[in-house]
Amino acid sequence: MIDTARFPASCERWDVYEISLPGRADGNPFTDWTIWGEFRGPGDVKRVSGFYDGNGVYRVRFMPCAEGRYTFTVSGTFSDRVWEGSFETLPASAGNHGVVRVRNRYHLAYDDGTPHYSVGTTCYAFALQAPEIVEQTFDELGRSGFNKLRFCLMPKHYDFSLRDPVAFPYEGTPMDASVLTRENFAEYTGNPPGNDWDFTRFNPEFFRLYDRMIGRLLEMGIEADIILFHAYDRWGFSQMPMDANERYIRYVAARYSAYRNVWWGLANEYELLPGLSGHWEELAQILVDSDPWGHLRSIHNCETFYDYSRPWITHCSCQRCDHHKTTEDTDELRRRYGKPVIWDEVGYEGDFPHCWGNFTPEELVRRAWEAAIRGGYCGHSETFLSDDGIVWWAHGGRLKGESAERFDFLRKFLEDVPGCGLKLGKLRDDVHFQWDDYVAIPEDPALEGTYYFFYYSIWRPPFRQIYIDDTTLFEAEAIDTWNMTVTPLGRFRGRTELPLPGTQYCGIRVRAVEEG
Amino acid sequence: MIDTARFPASCERWDVYEISLPGRADGNPFTDWTIWGEFRGPGDVKRVSGFYDGNGVYRVRFMPCAEGRYTFTVSGTFSDRVWEGSFETLPASAGNHGVVRVRNRYHLAYDDGTPHYSVGTTCYAFALQAPEIVEQTFDELGRSGFNKLRFCLMPKHYDFSLRDPVAFPYEGTPMDASVLTRENFAEYTGNPPGNDWDFTRFNPEFFRLYDRMIGRLLEMGIEADIILFHAYDRWGFSQMPMDANERYIRYVAARYSAYRNVWWGLANEYELLPGLSGHWEELAQILVDSDPWGHLRSIHNCETFYDYSRPWITHCSCQRCDHHKTTEDTDELRRRYGKPVIWDEVGYEGDFPHCWGNFTPEELVRRAWEAAIRGGYCGHSETFLSDDGIVWWAHGGRLKGESAERFDFLRKFLEDVPGCGLKLGKLRDDVHFQWDDYVAIPEDPALEGTYYFFYYSIWRPPFRQIYIDDTTLFEAEAIDTWNMTVTPLGRFRGRTELPLPGTQYCGIRVRAVEEG
Repeated sequence: MIDTARFPASCERWDVYEISLPGRADGNPFTDWTIWGEFRGPGDVKRVSGFYDGNGVYRVRFMPCAEGRYTFTVSGTFSDRVWEGSFETLPASAGNHGVVRVRNRYHLAYDDGTPHYSVGTTCYAFALQAPEIVEQTFDELGRSGFNKLRFCLMPKHYDFSLRDPVAFPYEGTPMDASVLTRENFAEYTGNPPGNDWDFTRFNPEFFRLYDRMIGRLLEMGIEADIILFHAYDRWGFSQMPMDANERYIRYVAARYSAYRNVWWGLANEYELLPGLSGHWEELAQILVDSDPWGHLRSIHNCETFYDYSRPWITHCSCQRCDHHKTTEDTDELRRRYGKPVIWDEVGYEGDFPHCWGNFTPEELVRRAWEAAIRGGYCGHSETFLSDDGIVWWAHGGRLKGESAERFDFLRKFLEDVPGCGLKLGKLRDDVHFQWDDYVAIPEDPALEGTYYFFYYSIWRPPFRQIYIDDTTLFEAEAIDTWNMTVTPLGRFRGRTELPLPGTQYCGIRVRAVEEG
Repeated sequence: MIDTARFPASCERWDVYEISLPGRADGNPFTDWTIWGEFRGPGDVKRVSGFYDGNGVYRVRFMPCAEGRYTFTVSGTFSDRVWEGSFETLPASAGNHGVVRVRNRYHLAYDDGTPHYSVGTTCYAFALQAPEIVEQTFDELGRSGFNKLRFCLMPKHYDFSLRDPVAFPYEGTPMDASVLTRENFAEYTGNPPGNDWDFTRFNPEFFRLYDRMIGRLLEMGIEADIILFHAYDRWGFSQMPMDANERYIRYVAARYSAYRNVWWGLANEYELLPGLSGHWEELAQILVDSDPWGHLRSIHNCETFYDYSRPWITHCSCQRCDHHKTTEDTDELRRRYGKPVIWDEVGYEGDFPHCWGNFTPEELVRRAWEAAIRGGYCGHSETFLSDDGIVWWAHGGRLKGESAERFDFLRKFLEDVPGCGLKLGKLRDDVHFQWDDYVAIPEDPALEGTYYFFYYSIWRPPFRQIYIDDTTLFEAEAIDTWNMTVTPLGRFRGRTELPLPGTQYCGIRVRAVEEG
């Protein structure tokens, strides 16, 4: 039986095509009944799991990756009927570039070829805050240059983040939050008494909230880096039985994989989840099998990197393992794992008592540039104490620091790099005065010789000698990454001496130019 | 034949007892004739080589290490006579503590037991400058807190240090310095044409100049860290034949070993002397054999540490091998080599174009504290461009920066540490909020529990929780290593929260105190 009238007639390429259908509400629809969609478009055939969204409603979400006519069939035990339909996939509109994937081995680009220079920020529990805080977060994201937001799906219990979330992922009752204080919160970590959940029954309201959040990020061109498991928990969600963990992954993947901006973080600080320590590969395989679009996937460490060479891992999602040397290890990690290196956590700008949360903006921005010149990427967040207890890193809200706008400057700088991405270059060994230069060059060997960025980090040379070759005409600019200025230094050929501000965090950009 | 009248009747313990004698001036006295002294005092018997000082004068220098009566005999081919004599060794006067030696495996102390907390500076060619510059250097040293001066014996040819020295170590003629420019100086490195030296004939005037320099440092309580070989050379002194190298070491050791404040640096940046690469152990053995007092000995690297586990090496004399992480590796080097770790070169405060020479004072001072809390030591120097071309690091002269007085503050801080020296401590694993603390404790296990210094480096916590044990009464102080303030924070027992300035480079010192 065919019923096409109830389905949308068209969809934009890489947008979410959603099919909503009535189905069985008896038993436990989350576990007892199935729903599948099979889609056929030009060179694009996929079988996609649907999900139950409460109130007798089932949904299948699909992202068409090709333009043209698609047909589909929806079936399963959820209904006695088989549903069929078709739609037209229209060209992507401006700002819709598709899914971000690995490009040039160490870098990222959207499906349409546009490079994606990852400049992310972290607000772990932003979605589960009061609506006015959530609006502030989106407002700040709209004004900042961040193109990725990293957050936990499950609620967060940790220092400065003790309030109950606006919704819970399961049917049931949470422990009483009124007993918590800043002093005793750690004692309630894990699965303390008082929680009563049915891990077989999702709370659709909770997941619909994330539909809206991920959808809004998508509209803003911001990637949604979804962390599936984390240890900062007082509800037992970090200690569920394995069948619940698997069901959770399948449900989340069925629900969100069709959003083009989704990235998967299998865990935050995986080592802090000892109950899952033997199960990450198994959980990863479920995630791989449940996401027909193969979104970016990684797993984030606390003190020891996961083995990023595992085939299911698309990129390194790193936390600094060394308090002093962090993003300066980017090229070493690139060599070791042969994948993009994204430092999602290197410390935060703020005034927390915890030393991961009281970095100066200068140091956080410096770490981002150290990653960038080595062909990696570094994320931002803020941890400022305030009377209202709203902290960007946990809740979102308002940005208060000085680093965010400088991450935007970095992103714009990266967008000016020829090709897709930088790597650390080597200079002539015979030039005495250049031995302590760190220079970034384009990743693509075909672009060698066209672009150089000398970065001076904590150092503050008042001038530098530059010598690349004798014949090419180059154009130079002094770039002050802290004051966000680009100062033209004119053209040169051969050996030259170029002035710098003599302050920290500056560099020299040199580009080959045409004669005349 | 005995002639006692011409010899001094007494000497202070650990001072230089010098015997001057006439001898043969025919042939080449530097190579043809020998002079030896044999000394016998209470528990102190030594055979010491003398040296020729020109104009028919030979000298033997001896440092008596015990109080009481010494007798001696001087003989050799330099004279037909054998000279005998005796003298009384008097107690050391205030400020004379003897020779600095390794103590507590990783630290240093003088012969009389007084700890030596090494806070050095480097003026590579200070002794060979015009007299008014030399006087400025001593004036600055007298007002600063540095207790070690590191310098090259041989003259130095390098960027910003191109003038001829006031004297040369050998008879002969140097190349013409007037051809040198800042642009071409590197081409003249090594042994360019125009030099004409007799490596068998020392220039006594050159070495008498160092007698005065080392003696003045001794009077000021400043250790003289003498670098014997280095590559920054345009006279060929870095490329002498091995017999000349050996003669040079024996001459220098005979001449200066009796100065209690001498340390030996076999080389600066040994890797840059490829002609000596297979010979360091041989040269070291000659140095060991030529110094009856066993002064501290090391060899300084450029980019790769020498094997400091060699038995003749008393301590690690390190240059940073990693531009970003340096003195934070101190505990790792302590574990690897089991010897004191002295970072003689981690970069310099200044405004040079070279990135090793344009550190902020904050970063240089931070590196010194990172070494200190790990039970190591870090040296200072300055590289400021100026109209007169006088740079502390090369010439001495005037101190211009902000770090020197902060090294003095560090030295005073170290002098307050119980016992002799610090090491990195471990805190209770069960205290959640202390996991990112770096805490220094006394090296001596017997002093465990009496002293803690929590250092926050680049971080800026506005407060920290401290918890050591439940029973001890502690006294706390906030230490701002940049502003050089010590602020009492009162007494506490058990768990406490202590305020900090909320700026970088601060720490908390906690000392156990008596009840009442």
